Amino acid sequence: MAKEENKKMVEDITSMDVDFAQWYTDIVKKAELCDYSSMKGCIILEPAGQAIWEMIHDNLDKRFKDTGVQNVAMPLFIPESLLQKEKDHVEGFAPEVAWVTMGGLEPLAEKCCVRPTSETLFSDYYARKVHSYRDLPKDYNQWCSVVRWEKTTRPFLRSREFWWQEGHTCHATLEDAQWRTETMLNVYADFCEQDLAIPVIKGQKTEKEKFAGAVETYSIEALMHDGKALQAGTSHNFGDGFAKAYDVTFTDKDNQLKHVFQTSWGVTTRLIGALIMVHGDDSGLVLPPKVAPTQVIVIPIAAHKEGVMEKATEIAEDLKKNYRAKLDDSEKSPGFKFAEAEMRGIPIRVEIGPKDIEAGKAVLVRRDTREKIEVELDKIEEEVGKLLETIQNDMLVRAREHYAAHTSVAHNFDELKAVIDSNPGFVKAMWCGDRACEDKIKEELAVTSRNIPFEQEHVGDVCVCCGKPAKKMVYWGRAY
Amino acid sequence: MAKEENKKMVEDITSMDVDFAQWYTDIVKKAELCDYSSMKGCIILEPAGQAIWEMIHDNLDKRFKDTGVQNVAMPLFIPESLLQKEKDHVEGFAPEVAWVTMGGLEPLAEKCCVRPTSETLFSDYYARKVHSYRDLPKDYNQWCSVVRWEKTTRPFLRSREFWWQEGHTCHATLEDAQWRTETMLNVYADFCEQDLAIPVIKGQKTEKEKFAGAVETYSIEALMHDGKALQAGTSHNFGDGFAKAYDVTFTDKDNQLKHVFQTSWGVTTRLIGALIMVHGDDSGLVLPPKVAPTQVIVIPIAAHKEGVMEKATEIAEDLKKNYRAKLDDSEKSPGFKFAEAEMRGIPIRVEIGPKDIEAGKAVLVRRDTREKIEVELDKIEEEVGKLLETIQNDMLVRAREHYAAHTSVAHNFDELKAVIDSNPGFVKAMWCGDRACEDKIKEELAVTSRNIPFEQEHVGDVCVCCGKPAKKMVYWGRAY
Repeated sequence: MAKEENKKMVEDITSMDVDFAQWYTDIVKKAELCDYSSMKGCIILEPAGQAIWEMIHDNLDKRFKDTGVQNVAMPLFIPESLLQKEKDHVEGFAPEVAWVTMGGLEPLAEKCCVRPTSETLFSDYYARKVHSYRDLPKDYNQWCSVVRWEKTTRPFLRSREFWWQEGHTCHATLEDAQWRTETMLNVYADFCEQDLAIPVIKGQKTEKEKFAGAVETYSIEALMHDGKALQAGTSHNFGDGFAKAYDVTFTDKDNQLKHVFQTSWGVTTRLIGALIMVHGDDSGLVLPPKVAPTQVIVIPIAAHKEGVMEKATEIAEDLKKNYRAKLDDSEKSPGFKFAEAEMRGIPIRVEIGPKDIEAGKAVLVRRDTREKIEVELDKIEEEVGKLLETIQNDMLVRAREHYAAHTSVAHNFDELKAVIDSNPGFVKAMWCGDRACEDKIKEELAVTSRNIPFEQEHVGDVCVCCGKPAKKMVYWGRAY
Repeated sequence: MAKEENKKMVEDITSMDVDFAQWYTDIVKKAELCDYSSMKGCIILEPAGQAIWEMIHDNLDKRFKDTGVQNVAMPLFIPESLLQKEKDHVEGFAPEVAWVTMGGLEPLAEKCCVRPTSETLFSDYYARKVHSYRDLPKDYNQWCSVVRWEKTTRPFLRSREFWWQEGHTCHATLEDAQWRTETMLNVYADFCEQDLAIPVIKGQKTEKEKFAGAVETYSIEALMHDGKALQAGTSHNFGDGFAKAYDVTFTDKDNQLKHVFQTSWGVTTRLIGALIMVHGDDSGLVLPPKVAPTQVIVIPIAAHKEGVMEKATEIAEDLKKNYRAKLDDSEKSPGFKFAEAEMRGIPIRVEIGPKDIEAGKAVLVRRDTREKIEVELDKIEEEVGKLLETIQNDMLVRAREHYAAHTSVAHNFDELKAVIDSNPGFVKAMWCGDRACEDKIKEELAVTSRNIPFEQEHVGDVCVCCGKPAKKMVYWGRAY
């Protein structure tokens, strides 16, 4: 029975080299991150997926609060009339919202939509709450789910309902709004690199790609294992556009009535998709220690032998004092437990059997490299601590290497066309700034501008598409 | 300016003896716990309210996980066909759900409702995931908001959308389900008493009052300052009713295919309403230290004088090491700051001015009793720690005294009628078990059975309503 289960868990995974999309879906299912639901296009976050999202939540929430952000909770619904006040915004979202038309047994006097995002609700709230410069800034955020009626969906990457945080802030000046916009982009980038071990490119979205209603949109872009890009977070400066549409004004120090300046910024459960596609391998998920719900799992070998379970329990209890540790005392075979711990991406497993105990040792196995390290029993805690740090650092280094190896330069359209297939990944190329070139590149190559990076490099003088003088260096890629 | 603001903050509050309902609403608004939104019947949790909810979340979530519960996230929507599988359940909820009939620009083939509760979604999920006794138990919970299209609403007590947690579990035997049902009721009761300082009565709901689809419903009932009862949490044993409706089966150890046994249990943002109405006074909220987002606030007196702000900052920084402490360094007057700290219910304020500094002392002021305690500067941390414990204990003692003083006994209908007005609160009275008596008491006195307490007392032999032989002692009351 045990052997059969063990075999089953491994054989069910498609190799990522054979079929990347299927490999991704297999991990999502086998690691029990999420499941499809009877509500078409909506997923269920299962315990393992929810636990990762809670790690992301706790970590980011602390970072937000350190910058002065406070949490609130806005209604789930937006009355139709409220949604329609900002023209660009409603045009951007109306085609994909879910409409509530009946409450109880009666039709509603005014239909309302389930929030696709909450700029409208926050603006309406700020219009009532903000009166004086003393009321500013308002730096609010909420953790919730939002709904966009997508036609095609993929777990974590695109679903009709997804979980996210959305920060919405209000400021006295455009400069303050810009500071908040950039600060949050930096928080996201730092979190991705330091905690998720995912390197990202910080930059500005083009006019074509910016958010409906924003003056400027900034993003962080990450590279997946298959060379596709993934937008991992966005931060928008709205200027006073929403303030004018929703009449959010304040009396400034000079006694003049002025419109506020607003921002919004968000990351979503997509980040779990990024974790899978940046770090995963053919045995399953590989989680960076800082966001692994379980950092170390203790697996007894020959658990029926005298003293083994006692020792394994003792080790697990000691580790729990400083790490997120677990003992696998289930009745499965050690082989099955190994496969399961690997599938779930637990950074370190501790193997302890009769021979180890006799020798006063245990074996630590790294999930990322599978390296086995023999340690003295009385040094386990210390060694686990060091190893978790090493794994976290090594994972970032490897992700950076992959990103560097899959970033090319193109000087003209033919080069761009060739390189995007020969070495799928980011392509750095100059751009004239014209929408027409962006459109052509998207249409002919299915390649989009990812962002205009803050760290500009000079990789040529002319636009990669039209050959006219170039204004900016842009990161291009095929994206999720 | 400052004086005017100070006066305004205090005069805006209605005394609870003059108009309890208005007093409640005033606190909700003035302490900025929540605000009305443009979406009728839906509230906005403002930072102070959300922060309390996060304290409740963090504390309860840890207690849940200690009993083996794992978190998940289910979809927001329930397809109509799924909602309709359990007859009692759909009858209970259909009249008050919000229906989504359009997705994007197109009508839906099947309408779906926004979850009023998620038994149906969990049962559907379990039907797919549970196969063997090895898959049991499933002890899952989610933190989310739910929607019930209520006609009349009151902040925290009744609104169209509210925030809660809903646990949904699956077991191999009825006994296991009953253990989980009672365990969670005990978790709620212990949390209310130990952390919220709110004494509660644990007991079973009558047939009339039980949850749609449940075999047994249990509740904890609390008493508000005005003598009205508030159901503070519920826990349901569903037997195998949902399992049969949703076909949730498993192969047991004896190789027989059996239906699982299920439970659900929840507490909501109502608990914030309970905190207001159990502990609040005419100066605002009074928060128990264990769930106070800010436990101690340092307020400098004559902050412009040399050394005052430095000392106040130093004290606040020291306190932050072990407590949730804040410094109020705003430009408001001390009087305004005192009133604001009282309104927000912060358990302790520290006053520090030039004379205090000279004497090497500071003044601690208790929010609950307003007692002023002079302490040596180098003993502040220690004294604050002790005082927080004292306040937590004293608040529970006072709430227990209020509950005892407002709990009466009635032996017949006339006594019940008289006492419910002369001493509003709980009434202990015997009941024959007939629905007709319960209906009559509700109709004529607007009094409902709160629960049949686990701790039965013998307060008579005959039913308080019909005079026939009684079966059980029941807590009765007028309820929110």
